[in-house]
Amino acid sequence: MDAIEVIRAKRDGGELTTAQIDWVIDAFTRGGVADEQMSALAMAVLLNGMNRREIADWTQAMIRSGERMDWSALDRPTADKHSTGGVGDKITLPLAPLVAACGAYVPQLSGRGLGHTGGTLDKLESIPGWRASLSNSEMLDVLRSAGAVVCAAGSGLAPADKKLYALRDVTGTVESIPLIASSIMSKKIAEGTGSLVLDVKVGSGAFMKTPSAARELAETMVALGTDAGVRTVALLTAMDRPLGRAVGNALEVEESVEVLAGGGPADVVELTVRLAKEMLEAAGVSGKDPAKVLQDGSAMDAWRRMITAQGGDPDALLPRAAETLTVEAPSSGVLTRLDAYAVGLAAWRLGAGRARKEDPVSFGAGVTLHAKPGDLVREGQPLLTLHADETARFERALEALEDGYAVGEAGQELLPLVIDRVTAP
Amino acid sequence: MDAIEVIRAKRDGGELTTAQIDWVIDAFTRGGVADEQMSALAMAVLLNGMNRREIADWTQAMIRSGERMDWSALDRPTADKHSTGGVGDKITLPLAPLVAACGAYVPQLSGRGLGHTGGTLDKLESIPGWRASLSNSEMLDVLRSAGAVVCAAGSGLAPADKKLYALRDVTGTVESIPLIASSIMSKKIAEGTGSLVLDVKVGSGAFMKTPSAARELAETMVALGTDAGVRTVALLTAMDRPLGRAVGNALEVEESVEVLAGGGPADVVELTVRLAKEMLEAAGVSGKDPAKVLQDGSAMDAWRRMITAQGGDPDALLPRAAETLTVEAPSSGVLTRLDAYAVGLAAWRLGAGRARKEDPVSFGAGVTLHAKPGDLVREGQPLLTLHADETARFERALEALEDGYAVGEAGQELLPLVIDRVTAP
Repeated sequence: MDAIEVIRAKRDGGELTTAQIDWVIDAFTRGGVADEQMSALAMAVLLNGMNRREIADWTQAMIRSGERMDWSALDRPTADKHSTGGVGDKITLPLAPLVAACGAYVPQLSGRGLGHTGGTLDKLESIPGWRASLSNSEMLDVLRSAGAVVCAAGSGLAPADKKLYALRDVTGTVESIPLIASSIMSKKIAEGTGSLVLDVKVGSGAFMKTPSAARELAETMVALGTDAGVRTVALLTAMDRPLGRAVGNALEVEESVEVLAGGGPADVVELTVRLAKEMLEAAGVSGKDPAKVLQDGSAMDAWRRMITAQGGDPDALLPRAAETLTVEAPSSGVLTRLDAYAVGLAAWRLGAGRARKEDPVSFGAGVTLHAKPGDLVREGQPLLTLHADETARFERALEALEDGYAVGEAGQELLPLVIDRVTAP
Repeated sequence: MDAIEVIRAKRDGGELTTAQIDWVIDAFTRGGVADEQMSALAMAVLLNGMNRREIADWTQAMIRSGERMDWSALDRPTADKHSTGGVGDKITLPLAPLVAACGAYVPQLSGRGLGHTGGTLDKLESIPGWRASLSNSEMLDVLRSAGAVVCAAGSGLAPADKKLYALRDVTGTVESIPLIASSIMSKKIAEGTGSLVLDVKVGSGAFMKTPSAARELAETMVALGTDAGVRTVALLTAMDRPLGRAVGNALEVEESVEVLAGGGPADVVELTVRLAKEMLEAAGVSGKDPAKVLQDGSAMDAWRRMITAQGGDPDALLPRAAETLTVEAPSSGVLTRLDAYAVGLAAWRLGAGRARKEDPVSFGAGVTLHAKPGDLVREGQPLLTLHADETARFERALEALEDGYAVGEAGQELLPLVIDRVTAP
C-alpha cells in the first residue's frame, strides 16, 4: 500500500477501505506517511467526505495509535462531557464536581483554547498552583479523592489525532464533520469513560453555525461512541449569544464558583443541571437531584477537593486585569443583539485567548456582560466591561464588538438554550 | 495575508485574487508557506479548479520565482516544442536539429522520465560523453554553433515549479489541468523561446486519456503562452499506440538517427515534419521544406554538431542490453491492438524508466516493435523484442503486456496521428 494510492482513492470520490485507513493512520503516526501527504488527504476528505463506516474506521485507527485508559478498577460508573466549544462556556467547571457529588466519577481530559473559544485548562490554570498535567496514577488518585479530575491528555493518548490536528490547524482542514467527529471521539473513547454527553454548540460563536450542521455532527459522534461501547447522548445548545455573563479565564472561574455556591447566571445554572442529569442517566446513577446538590454545598465541596488535589488553592485571589473599559448603552430600549462571535473575538483580542499554540494567555483578560439579549437597558447604562493588561488592546476589541450588539425595539430571535437532544437510533 | 486564508478561499470554491496567488507562490518559494500547506492548496485546486485568470496569475508568479532567459542577442528567431509525454516519443531528437537546419534556433530545456513515459535527457545520455547540464553561456555557445541545444533546466528557472512539482508527485495532485498547464508553461515561458509548439498526447499512454481533456489542456496552455507574448500553437496527437518502433533510451536514439538519415518509421517521420512546419511557421521562418531537409543530410549535420558540442560522440556505439526475449504472434491475422500504456509499462519494468527520481535508468533496456496495429502478422512471427540487463526483468514486463496486444480479424479503431490543432482564439 502507498500513500498516493490512498489519497487518489479519496480524491476521486471513492470510499476508503478499512485496510487503507488502518494503514494510512498507522504509517502517519510512525512518520511513514509525510505531513504533506496527510494534508492532501485531509483536504480530499474535507471536500469529498467520508461515510459512517469510514469515519468509524478512522476513529478506531486513531484510538489504536496510542493507549486506551481503563477505569474499571473504580467502584462507581464514569461519565464525561465534551463541548464543541463556545464563548463563555465554563460549564465543565461547575459540572464535573456536581456530577461527582451526585455519585459518578468524572475523568475528563480537556484542552486549551485556540482562536475565539476558550479552553478549560486555561481557565483552571488561572487558579494559583493548579496544574493540568497529571500522570495516569495521579489522575486515579484525584478521581478517588475528589470524584472528578480535569487535566491535560498525555502524549500517549491518540497520538495520531494530536499530529493530525496540528496539521489541520495550519492547512485549512479543520472544518470537516468527519475529521472533527473522529478527532473528538478518538480522544473521548481512548479516555475510557463509560458514558459521554456531548454538548454540540450552535450559532455564530460555535464551529457549527446552523442546527442542521450541528445535528449531523452530533449524530456522527453519538454513533461513533455507541459503536465503541460508550453510552453516548448529545444536546444541541445555543451559542448565538455568550453563555453566562463572564468571558475570559479567571472571570469564568469566578462565575463558576458563584454557580457552585448556589447562585450564578440562570443560563449557566440551567445548562449545568441539564447536562448533569444527562450524564447521571447515561451512567445509570440515580438518587440525587443535581439542582439540589448545587444548593446544598456538596458540589462546592467536590470542587474544592478537586482543585486542591491538583495543587490549586481554592481560596486564592484570582488574577485581575490592570485595565478596564466600560461600554455603555448608546440609547434606551431592548438589547436586541449580543453576538457570541463578536464577544469571543473581543475577549481573544483582549488577551484571553491565543493565536498560536505557544502563546501565553492573560488570565485576567476578558469581557463581562451587564445585560443579555432581551434585557431592557437605559441610555448610558453599562453594557459590557472589557478587561485587559494594557489599554492598547481596547481599540481592536471595540472594533470586534462594533456590529456585535444593538439596542432597539424588537428582541433578537434567540435559539432556545437546549435546541435538541440526539440519541443512538 | 496568510496561507490558511488562501487555502480556505480555494477550498470553499472561491476565486483566488492576483495578490493571493503572488503571495502564496512567493512565500512557498522562500519557505514561508509550508509544504503541508501547499499540498492542501494543491488538492483544493485539483478538486475545485482555477479559472483562466487564476491559471495565468499562477504561471506568472512561478516564472517570477526565478530567472527568465533571453535570446534576443541571437540573429534568428527561436522556436521550441514541448510534448506532454508518451511512449516511444523521441521526436525532439530529430526535430531540434531539423528545425535548426531550416533556419530557426531551438533552445530546449528538457526533463527526465518518471513513470512509464521516457525523458529526452535520459535518451540523449545514452550517447557516450553527452552531458545534459550546461551553464547559460554554454547553452548560448551550443545554440550558436549547432543551431539547437537540448539540456537540463538550471535550478534558477521557475524554482517554485520545481518545488511544487516534487510535492505534487507525492501527494496525488499531479492530475490537475490548471497545475499541469502552469507547470509546463512557466518553464517554457521562462526559457525565453519566441515561439512554442505543444504536442499534447492523447490516449492510454498519455496523461490525457481523451481528446476532450487534451483539448482543454491545449487551450489552457496556448492561452497562457499567447498572453505571455510567446507565439503558441498546439497539436493533439495519438498516444493510443507507441510512436515508432523503438521504446527505450538508446533504442530511441538509434531510431532518431535513422530518421535523420532519411529513413525511419513513417509515423515518426510524419510527426517530426509536421511539428517542424508548425515551429517554423510560428517563428516566421520560411524558405525550407523540412521533409527535404531531412533527406538532404543537413538535419543530420546539425544533429552531429549539437551532440558534439555537448561532449557526445555521434559515432560511438550505443549501449545494448545483455538479454533479449522475443514475443511471437499467437496466431495469424491482423494485429488489432498494441496498447501504448502496456508497452510503456513493460519498457519501464525492463529498466528503461525509473520509479524514483534518484534511480538510474538502463540505457539499453526497452522494447522494439516488429509490427504496428493494423499490420497483418503470421503465427510465430516476432511481434516484440524485450531488451533488459537481466533476464529476471522479463516476467513482470510480460505481465504488463498481457492484455496489451491482440491478433484478430478487425483492426483496432486508432486515433489519427494528428487529431486536432489548437491556436489562440
